[in-house]
Amino acid sequence: MKQDKYREKIHEWELEGIDETLFETALMHPSYDNSKKRSNQRLEFLGDAVLGLILAEHLFEKFPHCNEGEMTRMRANLAQESTLAQVATEIGLGSILFLGKGEEKDGGRTRPSTLADALEAVIASIYLSFGLEKATKFVLKYFGALEDRLAAAEREIMDYKTALQEYAQSLGSGNVHYRILAENGPPHQRVFSAGVYYCSRLWGEGTGRSKKEAEKAAAEVAYKAMVNHFHNPSKHHGKA
Amino acid sequence: MKQDKYREKIHEWELEGIDETLFETALMHPSYDNSKKRSNQRLEFLGDAVLGLILAEHLFEKFPHCNEGEMTRMRANLAQESTLAQVATEIGLGSILFLGKGEEKDGGRTRPSTLADALEAVIASIYLSFGLEKATKFVLKYFGALEDRLAAAEREIMDYKTALQEYAQSLGSGNVHYRILAENGPPHQRVFSAGVYYCSRLWGEGTGRSKKEAEKAAAEVAYKAMVNHFHNPSKHHGKA
Repeated sequence: MKQDKYREKIHEWELEGIDETLFETALMHPSYDNSKKRSNQRLEFLGDAVLGLILAEHLFEKFPHCNEGEMTRMRANLAQESTLAQVATEIGLGSILFLGKGEEKDGGRTRPSTLADALEAVIASIYLSFGLEKATKFVLKYFGALEDRLAAAEREIMDYKTALQEYAQSLGSGNVHYRILAENGPPHQRVFSAGVYYCSRLWGEGTGRSKKEAEKAAAEVAYKAMVNHFHNPSKHHGKA
Repeated sequence: MKQDKYREKIHEWELEGIDETLFETALMHPSYDNSKKRSNQRLEFLGDAVLGLILAEHLFEKFPHCNEGEMTRMRANLAQESTLAQVATEIGLGSILFLGKGEEKDGGRTRPSTLADALEAVIASIYLSFGLEKATKFVLKYFGALEDRLAAAEREIMDYKTALQEYAQSLGSGNVHYRILAENGPPHQRVFSAGVYYCSRLWGEGTGRSKKEAEKAAAEVAYKAMVNHFHNPSKHHGKA
């Protein structure tokens, strides 16, 4: 039964006590109720705004050196349909959706737009049931898990300069700059120091026997610092 | 002195206890600090998201019969630069802004984009200092006052059918429908009943000796109901 299935998810997502009528509505694709009386579309409108604020605040706190244009691009990137659909897939949201028969046949359960809308609606149902703090915890937990996995995959397959470039791009702006900060030692034993900048901030320094080596070492430090800085859920400061 | 002036506003707006560093930053146009270290642009990014959620939730609660498309249009209307600039002007925000000399000469203190940005930044500073509930109170209070005045002005100069049409348009969608619900009495003493629909909901009924008269009476009821429904700050349900 659908109810048993979604109650399992409520437990898994630590949402015990959620308004079940709202939660159920959040799972209803417009194709489900022919009378068009119940669907998740109004909740999706609200959830989009809740998610927008959560991501904006997260970026505002985690990227004090990024300007508003950079933060806007990062947020657009995190809130885009494909990212939302991926998060929804990760947490198994598709399996508990209510769909019309035609939509079910047409593969609606794995359609990115359906998954993204439902995820936003679920976020709204959490917000209305418990408030912003709990909604923030939910979002950062599951968006964070995704970041983790992406980062791990990248680390394995790429060198750090490439990984850093790709990671920066995934945040919305690939504007990574390298600068040689110092050159020391005699000509046959030069040691170079390089720094990596992103959003006007120095994220890592490294040294090496060549400029390229120094940049690679700096990229590794910067990459780790940025992933750590970015995907770790922020402490929430005291809100009413 | 600027500080005295903005402290008066803090008192007037009932924001005693606000983080004054944040509040001051919210008042700083990018032209003010030549080193570009302090400006209200990052706060504006956050405030835009705070305002987006506040308006989305308000519309979600106050217009249960509007669909997501209608609510999206209404929100865009309320959050547009000209509305924000008007609210900022109403509350005297321009007088306490920090501007560069050139910007001051160029009339920056009354520039709509400057006022709108600063208002969003102020909303962010309230949110970060006190939380969402207080930010909501602030927004609904001052956006509400604007609605009040607009509505009063309209009432004076227009008949209710026109006023209703304009008001509906100001909410983002002018889709007002009239329907004749009943016709009673003998041919020489017909009494008509009309209903007014907006966002699929019946907002008012009225009767009259002609269809037009019935519609006008219904429009008056609907107009008052909608203004009351829309501009009265919503009770906020229990949030953490």
